[in-house]
Amino acid sequence: MNDAAFDVVGLGNAIVDVIAPSDDAFIARHGLRKGGMTLADTVASEALYGAMGPATEMSGGSAANTMAGIASLGGRPAFFGRVRDDRLGEVFTHDIRAIGVGYDTPPARNGEPTGRCLILVTEDAERTMQTFLGASAQFGPEDVDDAVVRDAGIAYLEGYLFDPAPARAAFYKAAQTAHAAGRRVALSLSDSFCVDRHRAELRELVDGHVDILFANEEEIVSLYETADFAAALDAVRGRCEIAALTRSEKGSVIVSGNEAIEVGAEPVDKAVDTTGAGDLYAAGFLHGVSHGRSLTECGRLGSICAAEVIGHFGARPAVPLKDLVAEETG
Amino acid sequence: MNDAAFDVVGLGNAIVDVIAPSDDAFIARHGLRKGGMTLADTVASEALYGAMGPATEMSGGSAANTMAGIASLGGRPAFFGRVRDDRLGEVFTHDIRAIGVGYDTPPARNGEPTGRCLILVTEDAERTMQTFLGASAQFGPEDVDDAVVRDAGIAYLEGYLFDPAPARAAFYKAAQTAHAAGRRVALSLSDSFCVDRHRAELRELVDGHVDILFANEEEIVSLYETADFAAALDAVRGRCEIAALTRSEKGSVIVSGNEAIEVGAEPVDKAVDTTGAGDLYAAGFLHGVSHGRSLTECGRLGSICAAEVIGHFGARPAVPLKDLVAEETG
Repeated sequence: MNDAAFDVVGLGNAIVDVIAPSDDAFIARHGLRKGGMTLADTVASEALYGAMGPATEMSGGSAANTMAGIASLGGRPAFFGRVRDDRLGEVFTHDIRAIGVGYDTPPARNGEPTGRCLILVTEDAERTMQTFLGASAQFGPEDVDDAVVRDAGIAYLEGYLFDPAPARAAFYKAAQTAHAAGRRVALSLSDSFCVDRHRAELRELVDGHVDILFANEEEIVSLYETADFAAALDAVRGRCEIAALTRSEKGSVIVSGNEAIEVGAEPVDKAVDTTGAGDLYAAGFLHGVSHGRSLTECGRLGSICAAEVIGHFGARPAVPLKDLVAEETG
Repeated sequence: MNDAAFDVVGLGNAIVDVIAPSDDAFIARHGLRKGGMTLADTVASEALYGAMGPATEMSGGSAANTMAGIASLGGRPAFFGRVRDDRLGEVFTHDIRAIGVGYDTPPARNGEPTGRCLILVTEDAERTMQTFLGASAQFGPEDVDDAVVRDAGIAYLEGYLFDPAPARAAFYKAAQTAHAAGRRVALSLSDSFCVDRHRAELRELVDGHVDILFANEEEIVSLYETADFAAALDAVRGRCEIAALTRSEKGSVIVSGNEAIEVGAEPVDKAVDTTGAGDLYAAGFLHGVSHGRSLTECGRLGSICAAEVIGHFGARPAVPLKDLVAEETG
């Protein structure tokens, strides 16, 4: 993969996170699904914002967080995602470039404003999200630069983008371009309710186009409609080259061929905010894959990166990840 | 003071902080004064933003932070400050209301955009600021609601607002209204370079209009052009009812009549970001004054509130301050 200009190119939502501490009563009162992601229109988004507490704004987006993590690890990521030419769009663009991700999508001059994700963090460090996709929902094939996809070792697709039809079309285009150039395709399932909405098509995507699959326990159980994790693990076996299945504090299981490798979670002093944990696991894992590491090492890198973001507010690394993993990769 | 609807009304800059980790070399390269505040126009602000790292956006403004602290302590603060009807203005307005500060200034429909303060935080927890005042620089007497000033126990003035002439006029108007209603007037000197720019007028303001003065070591030495802190302490004595002089890790000295009370700093596990330390000291102190506490108790409350914000990124409390000071105020 040394002939590629980029290690990984991510396709995903380009949104700014609006993060505030909250509690279960507030989440219940506003009809949100705790620990999950609910899509909202402008009106619902404004209403929740008006009701929630003082917040912190930080760039977010699942695949964008993963690309930020890869940059922080010293890798070479690129990103495609759609913002408007407004203040939040400027914030998103500044932050992703500042951490070292190649991002050249020009902001849209019309249409919906830049998307935002209201994130309520409870005392148990769990995050509950309400997302107004905005400009991000209009992401389509024209936002994907084939030359960059051909020049990236891995094309990484964010499951959340499976809701809008033009973004699904962009996925297939990117996957075909990547494979035609001899590259690999990775997919994160993102959310079990998103899997519910698109189960059949996601299974086809995994079978026909995905080399590396990321899913948590709920998502993989939902994808294959199995009774439990063990059954889901059997169901995914052989359907793609690598499936990295995350299980929160139980660590992860990496399924490849006949192997099923268990990797422990990295201990966290105090879990503050789990936002971005899955995104950063994928960052560490993909960085390992890009550098020819063993699957066990890839899982370890994922665990270390996930633990870093769990320890603080926000979904992107607060310290250079390359320093944190120096021992592992040294 | 129990007849007042508000404990304190603050007049200050209404700006959003854009906070990023940085280092001394970057600060030197961009011609900034480490630990200080430099004013910038749009061009300089955009240039620095383009060069700085991934950032976090949080509502700021010195007096606004102080009012947020008083709300977090369970007090009744109000605030006057000027934003535009743009995205950052919406963020500022949301956050200050969400924490419980009375803020009814309608956003300006024209003129400069909402101000922002780029804050570079170095490893030593020191913060270096570059401020684009924007809409805030157009704050004037018309932004002060006399009825609210008459109905607040203390009117609190932010020294940073001494730069634009219309804001100075607003200060005098508010001070006169407060005193005519039998209220008290407090002033924070904010920055030693700001004191340099307006020394004569600030001395007149202190002598003629201020009951409670907040200043750090550099600011009080600059105001009276003395050789050292001890001489400045002598110089300020008798010029106002109370002078609360902060000395970072050495705590504070409260000068009132013939007294000079020393109060220790509250220990901090790990200093992360000193942004807002002075603002939150003032919050604790004024909350004590509003509730008839002794000057020693006021100083203690100030120290505890300052320690809380020093322990994390950002200039506003991350936990309810009323819980932190429960023992002190029992």
